[in-house]
Amino acid sequence: MTVYKAPVDDYMFVLHELLRVQELASLEAFANVSADMTRQILEGAATFCEEVYHPLNAIGDEQGCVLENGVVRTPDGFADAYRHYCEAGWNRLGAPEERGGAGMPGVVVLPASEFAVSANAGLSLYSGLTNAAHATLARTGAEWMQEHVVPRMVDGAWSGTMCLTEPHCGTDLRLMKTRAVAQPDGSYRITGTKIFISGGDHDLTDNIIHLVLAKLPNTDGKWVDDLATVNFFMVPKFNLDPSTGRMLDRNDVSVGGVEKKMGIRGNPACVLNFDGAVGYRLAGGASAPGKQSSSAGMAGMFAMMNRARLGTGIAALAVAEKAAQNADAYARTRVAGKSRPGSGVPHTISEYPDVKRLLMRQRAFIEGARALGAWVSLQIDLEQASNDAAQRRRSGNLATLLTPVIKACFSDGAFQAANDAVQVYGGHGYIRDNGVEQFVRDTRIYQIYEGANGVQAFDLVARKMPAQGGGLVTTFLDEINATIAEASLVPALDACTAALRDGRDDLVLAAKWVAASGGDEHGDAAGGSYDVMSIFGVVAIGLMWLRVAKVAWDRIEAGEGDPRFYRRKLALARYWVQRELPLTRVLLERARLGNDGVVDLAAAHF
Amino acid sequence: MTVYKAPVDDYMFVLHELLRVQELASLEAFANVSADMTRQILEGAATFCEEVYHPLNAIGDEQGCVLENGVVRTPDGFADAYRHYCEAGWNRLGAPEERGGAGMPGVVVLPASEFAVSANAGLSLYSGLTNAAHATLARTGAEWMQEHVVPRMVDGAWSGTMCLTEPHCGTDLRLMKTRAVAQPDGSYRITGTKIFISGGDHDLTDNIIHLVLAKLPNTDGKWVDDLATVNFFMVPKFNLDPSTGRMLDRNDVSVGGVEKKMGIRGNPACVLNFDGAVGYRLAGGASAPGKQSSSAGMAGMFAMMNRARLGTGIAALAVAEKAAQNADAYARTRVAGKSRPGSGVPHTISEYPDVKRLLMRQRAFIEGARALGAWVSLQIDLEQASNDAAQRRRSGNLATLLTPVIKACFSDGAFQAANDAVQVYGGHGYIRDNGVEQFVRDTRIYQIYEGANGVQAFDLVARKMPAQGGGLVTTFLDEINATIAEASLVPALDACTAALRDGRDDLVLAAKWVAASGGDEHGDAAGGSYDVMSIFGVVAIGLMWLRVAKVAWDRIEAGEGDPRFYRRKLALARYWVQRELPLTRVLLERARLGNDGVVDLAAAHF
Repeated sequence: MTVYKAPVDDYMFVLHELLRVQELASLEAFANVSADMTRQILEGAATFCEEVYHPLNAIGDEQGCVLENGVVRTPDGFADAYRHYCEAGWNRLGAPEERGGAGMPGVVVLPASEFAVSANAGLSLYSGLTNAAHATLARTGAEWMQEHVVPRMVDGAWSGTMCLTEPHCGTDLRLMKTRAVAQPDGSYRITGTKIFISGGDHDLTDNIIHLVLAKLPNTDGKWVDDLATVNFFMVPKFNLDPSTGRMLDRNDVSVGGVEKKMGIRGNPACVLNFDGAVGYRLAGGASAPGKQSSSAGMAGMFAMMNRARLGTGIAALAVAEKAAQNADAYARTRVAGKSRPGSGVPHTISEYPDVKRLLMRQRAFIEGARALGAWVSLQIDLEQASNDAAQRRRSGNLATLLTPVIKACFSDGAFQAANDAVQVYGGHGYIRDNGVEQFVRDTRIYQIYEGANGVQAFDLVARKMPAQGGGLVTTFLDEINATIAEASLVPALDACTAALRDGRDDLVLAAKWVAASGGDEHGDAAGGSYDVMSIFGVVAIGLMWLRVAKVAWDRIEAGEGDPRFYRRKLALARYWVQRELPLTRVLLERARLGNDGVVDLAAAHF
Repeated sequence: MTVYKAPVDDYMFVLHELLRVQELASLEAFANVSADMTRQILEGAATFCEEVYHPLNAIGDEQGCVLENGVVRTPDGFADAYRHYCEAGWNRLGAPEERGGAGMPGVVVLPASEFAVSANAGLSLYSGLTNAAHATLARTGAEWMQEHVVPRMVDGAWSGTMCLTEPHCGTDLRLMKTRAVAQPDGSYRITGTKIFISGGDHDLTDNIIHLVLAKLPNTDGKWVDDLATVNFFMVPKFNLDPSTGRMLDRNDVSVGGVEKKMGIRGNPACVLNFDGAVGYRLAGGASAPGKQSSSAGMAGMFAMMNRARLGTGIAALAVAEKAAQNADAYARTRVAGKSRPGSGVPHTISEYPDVKRLLMRQRAFIEGARALGAWVSLQIDLEQASNDAAQRRRSGNLATLLTPVIKACFSDGAFQAANDAVQVYGGHGYIRDNGVEQFVRDTRIYQIYEGANGVQAFDLVARKMPAQGGGLVTTFLDEINATIAEASLVPALDACTAALRDGRDDLVLAAKWVAASGGDEHGDAAGGSYDVMSIFGVVAIGLMWLRVAKVAWDRIEAGEGDPRFYRRKLALARYWVQRELPLTRVLLERARLGNDGVVDLAAAHF
């Protein structure tokens, strides 16, 4: 049996001391944001997740989702818990008020999302995907969808999915075989097979709104392997009357199977068969009624993918948080070794330096990554909400650059943290009833979801870094340099500041090397991409730790707050800059090898 | 469905080109060893493992072991396969001829062990443990056990277990609660609960011989937490008549439960309850009948643990090999991306640099580690078999020093390799039916078995490195220096040689730092132990790669053999020295931090 306590205090620190979101009240989106309000939301979400979602986590893993008579049945208790979640409004904190949501900025919604995933990764995925889907529909759907579909998804009565992958193709969308045939009434008939569809069917909601990639014939009427023919469609499980939104008969979408998965077993990965199912093209939507186009729909799809990538990173972190809490609790109670003379206290394994190292590594990663995720989430908010065009551009640059980094580096670090938890438990970690091995199985997917981490690395070096002539990287470096300048005023932080400076220098060299290496998918930058991405991850978390350390130092100096909290943060910052930041040197050396020694080994040699 | 082809050619290279074991024919133990004989054994074992053990692997994982009416039932087909394995003699290649084995040196037995684990990690564990157990009995058991018990274990009719762990204590044997009470007839009655007993019960053999740690009262007749009171006992599942070895009634050992585990599900981790079970103290055995003592039995237990540690490293490697084979096969057939212009050949994901990187990393680790495992296995043979006392001592030093390194670094590397395989598969890797996620679940245990890797690291810095005033490390450095000197004669290997020289220098600095830091379990060396151990692992595999590269270079120069085989080895050597060896710098820097920044964070801060 596992434990979970939502990290409310840590998020209060991140939002209101580190990011100081309360000072953004001049922006309309942040008008209602205060520390009191945030704490109220976070404590409510924490209680719900701890008491309702968390107890169903092991049950979800044990029972999994079962296909019966063509319908997927979720584990015991999921349907009730999901209904309570939506009734309490936790699913729609971030949805626009005009569509029934609470209209909170993303950075305030983020903690509640993390708590839900920590408590129950499988169960929270249904609403996570639904939120991504209705936000996409809101951008790209026709007016009747805005009016009749989006509100039902916002209130949780209906859920949403993303249907991209097919049996023979995932990342390479060109190879897709699902076809869409235009009908005289403006709708389409969709035919094809999609796989790995999370929440593809279930018994939590009355209807499911599938967002589906499918091909149209080209201008010659032929089906070709060309990305330009791929379009984006809405396909409901039950047909809808566009004029009223009323549910009609069952659409021709059926569940071909539910995969047996390594983890996230509370959410089904479905095979969905579309057999001439009624679909509607998403081509720009109400926001630009005169400009409906395929590219608008695809842009919506990519926007959805970007949100999903960030969400994947945060989800990974969420499971890591729970794993670390359990490792810590176990290490403090497991007796081994001789008590220190005269102490009278049993010696627990948490006293061993190598166990401490594992606990510290988890914490330094998780809390540094949490700050980074929140900071990037804030950039996404500011990109929309800021009144300052330069700020909007800078924020957009940071979010764009760091999205693949967060997705990949958070999932890599979270997987390590989950494994560290098992290691702390020793043999007991390998036993299912103790619950921690589930975190390993659950976190393993986040390195794959929404584009495997190698694809993220290529996206970083081939698209994000070259964009705007390297402008995104420059914006990021400006942030690092400003932080270094500010922290340099505090001599006590000199070691941390120097370490970040070294990390920055390696990042600059990596960026120069990438710029000189070109973005071809077989080029040197591709060969070095993973190491380059890892440099960004280590440095970005290091940047956050220096900022955290500065805040913590200032608070201690000022005699404000609980000094134990801040001293702990300083210790974790030190851990990261001493033990993780120096990795950039080796990462840089390796990155610059590019394809040397990798590609020159002909495939035939294996 | 997974594939598996035993790496016979690679082992032929390792044994007969790299280690040149055929040149040891002057030693009695190696008298029969020739390349022809090795190939015959390896091909026979390969065919058996590929055709009989491998097809049962997924079934074993799916069905697991089930406790029914107090008896454990193994998965379908296991009992037959096990019987065939023993009938063919694969279980006893290494057992002494006088006890019914084939008397092969350990280094020749090693490949067959690897193949069996690759093919079916759960099934192969029954005989792996039995071999460790009867070798221990042969060293520490009374004459009647040598005569009546060991032969039945060698021929596979009976199996063996190691019963160490208890619910509240694993590594810290002092805390053990299982008690042994002496009986007038010289036997003992054993009472206590043991957990995580692999092969603790099953339906493969008629009897099971448990080797059990239990406490005797101290000289005051009290039960105390003192390691000196822990003794080693043989406890059969069915009682035995010592005078004839005939099986009698059921002993008072019962199965309290079978754990649900993350992996290795074809082998049960049993809770065993000993309720006054008849046991026999192992106290020196026939080899030293006049000198029976508790310490002799415990020495036997530790010898068994050492064999088991090496076996754990090799087992981890074995699963990694299978994972890598499947990743390679998948990457070569999964189509994605645009064909190169004019090639007419579909582009597969194996063409992508980052996928190549994953495949190369797996291969460079596995084949380097395989060479290292075989070399250390040979040292264990030579420690026994050499006619030269200095050689016996040197070989013993190397085996002793590198046992914890192999156990920990192989299991760490194997876990990464198994995860790399899943990553190559992408989403398909997460689906149970595709078989590769099982390798992740299976390999995960090897970082924990036989002392968690952090315990291995402490053993290295606190016992192995200080032993003989650092003499074990000196012996290892002599080997490295000799190899560097030899390779220095080949200018084409300069980059590899220089890299190993750098790695060696870091290892020397790490050893000096450990020597200066002391071996206290709360001291700095403990805090840096994991990084120190990782340096040893990276350098030891680097040493092997330089030796392999030298052999490969010589063969190419001489125009002998298949140059593609040797060029491939050179490429993998280059991968390791370019991309893994440089890690020693950061590892050294981190190691030397010791407890700085780890232990100073009071437990209360978490």
